[in-house]
Amino acid sequence: MKLKLLLSFFLLFTSVAAFSQDKQNKDAVEKGLIKVSVMYPYAEGKTFNMEYYETKHMPMVAGYLGANLVKYTIEKGLASGIPNQPLPFMAIGTFYIKSLSDYQAAIAPNRDAIRADFANYTNVAPIILVSEVVK
Amino acid sequence: MKLKLLLSFFLLFTSVAAFSQDKQNKDAVEKGLIKVSVMYPYAEGKTFNMEYYETKHMPMVAGYLGANLVKYTIEKGLASGIPNQPLPFMAIGTFYIKSLSDYQAAIAPNRDAIRADFANYTNVAPIILVSEVVK
Repeated sequence: MKLKLLLSFFLLFTSVAAFSQDKQNKDAVEKGLIKVSVMYPYAEGKTFNMEYYETKHMPMVAGYLGANLVKYTIEKGLASGIPNQPLPFMAIGTFYIKSLSDYQAAIAPNRDAIRADFANYTNVAPIILVSEVVK
Repeated sequence: MKLKLLLSFFLLFTSVAAFSQDKQNKDAVEKGLIKVSVMYPYAEGKTFNMEYYETKHMPMVAGYLGANLVKYTIEKGLASGIPNQPLPFMAIGTFYIKSLSDYQAAIAPNRDAIRADFANYTNVAPIILVSEVVK
């Protein structure tokens, strides 16, 4: 009985510790990381094929980045948050990386392949923001 | 001895299960969420006080959103990712929310207070993107 009780406490503690640790990691994981956000502006007549982008283009680029890539995200523009303003961006793809110089070194030899793939999903030139996660 | 072995396996399983569950939650947490990204364009003579934004403005707005807010992030613009292009944005603050209509309902009565606070940290008008997390 005493053993069972001890066991229960121990399991509870282990689970809570594992959870807290992971939550801490999760918060720590993003702060200080570099984001490379590839933003596709919306304009009349501009197109964007989200399915191709999600299933082909982004996995291809992510594949060049190796262990420097912490995660990547894709978002689909819905509207401007300001009434009567046009949609600012149709889509944004973001790479969360540890090192910008490693990113640049990985992309450089593949830049032509990446650019050649643009025509498969969009007819707009992206703008690219390099930023740092503050919070 | 047999009990110890069983115990070890059980603990290992519990930890792995807790970790997997949390990782699954973490992935599930973002996909399908709505992002409201408040983007501050860079231009000559434009200023942005990151400390005020991080410690005062964003917590104030986040405080209006209640349980609809899953998390918010802040990033600091460093450079354009395209050589010889100007920095696109000085800063971006992003709210990850479950419901856009709940967000709008929460912000509406506080819009004047939010706008009045802009002058405390920037002299540029933001653009706002509403988007959906695809991945």
